[in-house]
Amino acid sequence: MLRWITAGESHGPALVAVLDGLPSGVAVTTGDVAVELARRRLGYGRGARMKFEQDVVELTGGVRHGVTMGGPVAVRVGNTEWPKWEQVMSADPVDADVLAELARNSPLTRPRPGHADLAGMQKYDVDDARPVLERASARETASRVALGTVARAFLRQALGVEIVSHVVGIGAVTAPAGVVPRPADAAAVDESPVRCLDAAAGAAMVEEIDRTRKDGDTLGGVVEVLAYGLPPGVGSFTHGDRRLDARLAAALMGIQAIKGVEVGDGFELARIRGSLAHDEIVNDGGVLRRVSGRSGGTEGGMTTGEVLRVRAAMKPISTVPRALRTVDTETGEAAVAINQRSDVCAVPAAGVVAEAMVALVLAEAVLDKFGGDSVAETRRNADAYAARLVER
Amino acid sequence: MLRWITAGESHGPALVAVLDGLPSGVAVTTGDVAVELARRRLGYGRGARMKFEQDVVELTGGVRHGVTMGGPVAVRVGNTEWPKWEQVMSADPVDADVLAELARNSPLTRPRPGHADLAGMQKYDVDDARPVLERASARETASRVALGTVARAFLRQALGVEIVSHVVGIGAVTAPAGVVPRPADAAAVDESPVRCLDAAAGAAMVEEIDRTRKDGDTLGGVVEVLAYGLPPGVGSFTHGDRRLDARLAAALMGIQAIKGVEVGDGFELARIRGSLAHDEIVNDGGVLRRVSGRSGGTEGGMTTGEVLRVRAAMKPISTVPRALRTVDTETGEAAVAINQRSDVCAVPAAGVVAEAMVALVLAEAVLDKFGGDSVAETRRNADAYAARLVER
Amino acid sequence: MLRWITAGESHGPALVAVLDGLPSGVAVTTGDVAVELARRRLGYGRGARMKFEQDVVELTGGVRHGVTMGGPVAVRVGNTEWPKWEQVMSADPVDADVLAELARNSPLTRPRPGHADLAGMQKYDVDDARPVLERASARETASRVALGTVARAFLRQALGVEIVSHVVGIGAVTAPAGVVPRPADAAAVDESPVRCLDAAAGAAMVEEIDRTRKDGDTLGGVVEVLAYGLPPGVGSFTHGDRRLDARLAAALMGIQAIKGVEVGDGFELARIRGSLAHDEIVNDGGVLRRVSGRSGGTEGGMTTGEVLRVRAAMKPISTVPRALRTVDTETGEAAVAINQRSDVCAVPAAGVVAEAMVALVLAEAVLDKFGGDSVAETRRNADAYAARLVER
Amino acid sequence: MLRWITAGESHGPALVAVLDGLPSGVAVTTGDVAVELARRRLGYGRGARMKFEQDVVELTGGVRHGVTMGGPVAVRVGNTEWPKWEQVMSADPVDADVLAELARNSPLTRPRPGHADLAGMQKYDVDDARPVLERASARETASRVALGTVARAFLRQALGVEIVSHVVGIGAVTAPAGVVPRPADAAAVDESPVRCLDAAAGAAMVEEIDRTRKDGDTLGGVVEVLAYGLPPGVGSFTHGDRRLDARLAAALMGIQAIKGVEVGDGFELARIRGSLAHDEIVNDGGVLRRVSGRSGGTEGGMTTGEVLRVRAAMKPISTVPRALRTVDTETGEAAVAINQRSDVCAVPAAGVVAEAMVALVLAEAVLDKFGGDSVAETRRNADAYAARLVER
Repeated sequence: MLRWITAGESHGPALVAVLDGLPSGVAVTTGDVAVELARRRLGYGRGARMKFEQDVVELTGGVRHGVTMGGPVAVRVGNTEWPKWEQVMSADPVDADVLAELARNSPLTRPRPGHADLAGMQKYDVDDARPVLERASARETASRVALGTVARAFLRQALGVEIVSHVVGIGAVTAPAGVVPRPADAAAVDESPVRCLDAAAGAAMVEEIDRTRKDGDTLGGVVEVLAYGLPPGVGSFTHGDRRLDARLAAALMGIQAIKGVEVGDGFELARIRGSLAHDEIVNDGGVLRRVSGRSGGTEGGMTTGEVLRVRAAMKPISTVPRALRTVDTETGEAAVAINQRSDVCAVPAAGVVAEAMVALVLAEAVLDKFGGDSVAETRRNADAYAARLVER
Repeated sequence: MLRWITAGESHGPALVAVLDGLPSGVAVTTGDVAVELARRRLGYGRGARMKFEQDVVELTGGVRHGVTMGGPVAVRVGNTEWPKWEQVMSADPVDADVLAELARNSPLTRPRPGHADLAGMQKYDVDDARPVLERASARETASRVALGTVARAFLRQALGVEIVSHVVGIGAVTAPAGVVPRPADAAAVDESPVRCLDAAAGAAMVEEIDRTRKDGDTLGGVVEVLAYGLPPGVGSFTHGDRRLDARLAAALMGIQAIKGVEVGDGFELARIRGSLAHDEIVNDGGVLRRVSGRSGGTEGGMTTGEVLRVRAAMKPISTVPRALRTVDTETGEAAVAINQRSDVCAVPAAGVVAEAMVALVLAEAVLDKFGGDSVAETRRNADAYAARLVER
Repeated sequence: MLRWITAGESHGPALVAVLDGLPSGVAVTTGDVAVELARRRLGYGRGARMKFEQDVVELTGGVRHGVTMGGPVAVRVGNTEWPKWEQVMSADPVDADVLAELARNSPLTRPRPGHADLAGMQKYDVDDARPVLERASARETASRVALGTVARAFLRQALGVEIVSHVVGIGAVTAPAGVVPRPADAAAVDESPVRCLDAAAGAAMVEEIDRTRKDGDTLGGVVEVLAYGLPPGVGSFTHGDRRLDARLAAALMGIQAIKGVEVGDGFELARIRGSLAHDEIVNDGGVLRRVSGRSGGTEGGMTTGEVLRVRAAMKPISTVPRALRTVDTETGEAAVAINQRSDVCAVPAAGVVAEAMVALVLAEAVLDKFGGDSVAETRRNADAYAARLVER
Repeated sequence: MLRWITAGESHGPALVAVLDGLPSGVAVTTGDVAVELARRRLGYGRGARMKFEQDVVELTGGVRHGVTMGGPVAVRVGNTEWPKWEQVMSADPVDADVLAELARNSPLTRPRPGHADLAGMQKYDVDDARPVLERASARETASRVALGTVARAFLRQALGVEIVSHVVGIGAVTAPAGVVPRPADAAAVDESPVRCLDAAAGAAMVEEIDRTRKDGDTLGGVVEVLAYGLPPGVGSFTHGDRRLDARLAAALMGIQAIKGVEVGDGFELARIRGSLAHDEIVNDGGVLRRVSGRSGGTEGGMTTGEVLRVRAAMKPISTVPRALRTVDTETGEAAVAINQRSDVCAVPAAGVVAEAMVALVLAEAVLDKFGGDSVAETRRNADAYAARLVER
């Protein structure tokens, strides 16, 4: 049983994250995590904050001399801006006079439409949106990416699985259908300012971001994640919550600002007829293969052994420079929403976060199927299963 | 903590389902469950089986004299066709000679593209798709609908929440945007042969089903579920898996044949700009309300107090009369896929199933927030919260 | 991930139980379940009810032709006394006049000390203890024993694990220390009227039960469960709730009337010095073995590969014929507690229930370690691990 | 839903722990946590390490200006000895030459009977016990105590619940039966060198520790935890794993070195007759009370509203100075076990850890019953329940 948890606030001393249940023997370093965190900061359309922020990584537990030990893996992602926030976000009480002089500490009472602010204040019974937005902020995704690094190291080392993602749409600009990166294309995708594999589409996306920035507006988009090398039979049809599609959907929809999820051709499949919607089966020299990949590599909530492919739709950033109408909760008067940062578009980063979530779900499902307390044991079990499939 | 589990095979003696953790005092009867199960059998485009099948409901546990007692609620949905299947699906061993004479017992070795057949046989190491398709079949959704009946009774009695659904697309035919049923429209929706609120669109869907049947093909579509009456603050932003959006996505994507899920405007939100994508906040006589419902009634993974709205995309039925190419797993030769039933379209029923899953997720999230061991206690806690919101 | 759930009331139509996550290919029949249920009804000191009750077993789902299919296994244990209770325990409303004439339906308002009655009425806000005692009753353990049958079949077929239990104390009468049954002794234990391996102690227990019955009183006792054939490394030290000891303790303490649990020598270990309390390690022809079994076969929350041994202490039956003082909740007046059945001692049966709970926990922990979707796959993985241990 | 997780190694940079699901508004500071951690280091019979170790506490997340915000609470307990271990326990690879010169880095290959060493090496497939003992060590309990501090702050502020513990036995020396501390006695217990409320018994325990130290041996014992102020109906009889007894048993048995758990009089209840074993109910001026506390304050897996009382038996420390026989896993030769520290007895500290685990389980069960996203909301719900109990 694999499980994970994250903690920490956007402007707190650090984010922390724990991944419990991973086998021993997985090779991973702080450098590996730092590389993934750097990828998360990528992308055209981000504001100044991404430049200030640096992610100081510590593998606090579970890893020794570059390999996991079998216990919980804990990662800390330090906040280099902490000195600026030490009083505003202090865990312990701070003298009221000191706080009174800090502009940063003023209660935030103009909740942003589209953000957790208002419902969070109501739910947790607080007069200031600060406690809400500190945790609801997408900064939290750094801790997911950190854990995803460990999960994908396990998947690669145990099964040879490789995960890649790309941006398939930003606002109304979409990448050409059917163009998907293979593992070897991962670097090329990351070199695109918008993480789009198709150069022309990428250029159009950059233009759209520029236009939108000028208009004081924001953009969302769609990312696609692919996983190569999965065996058939990961996940299960036997119960709704065991279906891999369900677990992937939860993981992706649980990312900040995601409002839609598809497996394979998703909503498009609902529009076409059955004779065109399924992946026919052929005998390819003794191996049963599919002639297409419309299902996204799952059937009956299980992997088919083909490429896994899922998509997530991100709504536009809710902190809109042309600020939206809201109400000041202190006064009840109409107001404009708080405006904390100046990103136009965070879609390229969302792909990196989505990779991490896919990696975590797949690692969990792979361990359900193959067990194993060391990466060697999981690999041995998976190899024996693969041999049995050939023999069948 | 609410949890549920279903069991049973498509042609076994019965489906069973258990809902554990529901408060006492919820009024529910076998008749209520039977009504929902009958709704699940509705819909233009279903084959003969729906007529044969009758759902014999027994509330086996947890309910006495029409109210829940606080323990697990168990429902049994008997299979009236069981006498025909008694030997083929017998739990205990059956004489080999007897089985040899039953055509129905012949191993199914031509797995259907789009169904769980092939990956299921590989995963569970069986030579016959029967054990796979018996459980993977959509018949299992009857047990979800049965439990959903209990969950929605709880939601109605504790909070006044009402859940409705409708079909917004079948194949390429779509209902007009923005036309959504209110609770009072529920009967009207069910009277439509395709559960579409818009009469013209419904008629076009019926025609499309007829055309498709003639062509020996199948159809999918999109359903939308709405929940009225939820307070703000159900669900949470504090952890990815606590987000209501994530839990709804898992529940919907865990339904057979669902390949896409949206909350609110979903993928459409990814295409438009931030200034148009969020729901502005206004003070409506002391109550903070939204001027639009694009978010589907959730922000930051919590309900906002507006109408909850989610969509699920169903792929076309994978048992296509114009049978698809496959491989006979016994011989390795090319073959056409098994063809077990003759439905063209199951989208109307999928809406009823989706309502049930939404009800279960909401009941779970409501109990997380308000607790309560009797429906009176949950209501008392929710009322006190509502009073506090006004006072704030 | 293995999970299980039970439902149903003592006098309802049936108990139901579901075990989800078990591999395919486990051989089990309704007869196997019936045998275990019959063992649960064993034991000197039970009242008349055990003779009336017959357990009508149906494997409702998950098993076909004598082997599991990989989906949830559902068992129904019918209540042959149901016709007598059909109105009193009807799920649907019953005419008030009809109920008024049924003595059996009178509200129970004199809660028994030691039973769930009073706190249950308070928690679930009911004026009648009936809804509480119907579910709190030890009859529910029949559904656990039914599932335990399936779990132990899996353990035996995948790993060669055998589970046995015996009674080591009834009231003040205790069996001689250190006498533990081996798998071959299981039948002999069951032949003892009190399930005690030592004949003299068994005779003394029978006498104590007779004496106690004459005195209008009741007895508890202690049972011990042993599991033979487990490999080392099942369970884990890496997190408190992954420790096998913790999971066993929860499973045993979750049985009705159990108030104490020990692993190995348990409380006795707390009284002796470290030099006498641990199991020294020796090299026994290439295999590392222990010279004693004080730890009960676990160290650091993991199996050591030695015999697993756990104990559970059962309090005396709380329905005491010499009825205890209580208060009538309707009137607030002092009263004597309701007295529903006439058992003196249920300890022999508790051993059978404890075996079932140990089997379920071990099956869960074995699947965590070895994975596997068919019993052949789990066995293959476990065999490869065993080979690796030898090689180390 | 409350959940918690801990991570980190004994000699790593820090332990980390996360408590997710706690309401907002709970007042807690780093000082509160430090106080509890200092209590955990208490106790006669500890070796030098306890003096070196200091627990540097950081509330990394979830708390702002002295109150929880509703998100996960993360605590870091820094290891002041880290500079000595920086290379031996480095997460990242260290130059082999550097490591070769560090005596501390030598593989540990003489597994201790009674510790996780041997089974851990087998399970996780490692040649060195270091990765095992670093996580299996009781140092990990510091992270549990840290989280327990937060849980008990919640229980106190929401319900007025107070938790105390005391030592009732060390080796063969036992405290007089029936002497239990009340909340006001907490300081007095902590002043005892062995955390024993009875001065004479405490003195005898100190002597026994001295004698045992001279003999080069170690001791275990028994601790008892009491919780005052719980309402009736926390926990439930409706399912085995919802029983509060089961959850408490798991939490206590999941503590390092615990081998036995009792609720109330536990094993003693199994020895006496029913007429003496249960807590009779009387009407005490309109409130239903018990005339005794044998059940430990639970019936049917629920609190009764009386004092909760549970016990845990700790085996003697397994690192015995008079070292035990083992086998060197590198050579297969007989050897004496590694001997890493010099504590004689850790029972006083175990009581503090047990308090923390009880607090966590109670906080979880209280939230299940009462819900609440702010401490004010939980309190409001609990108060309304209490009022309803009076009205009944």
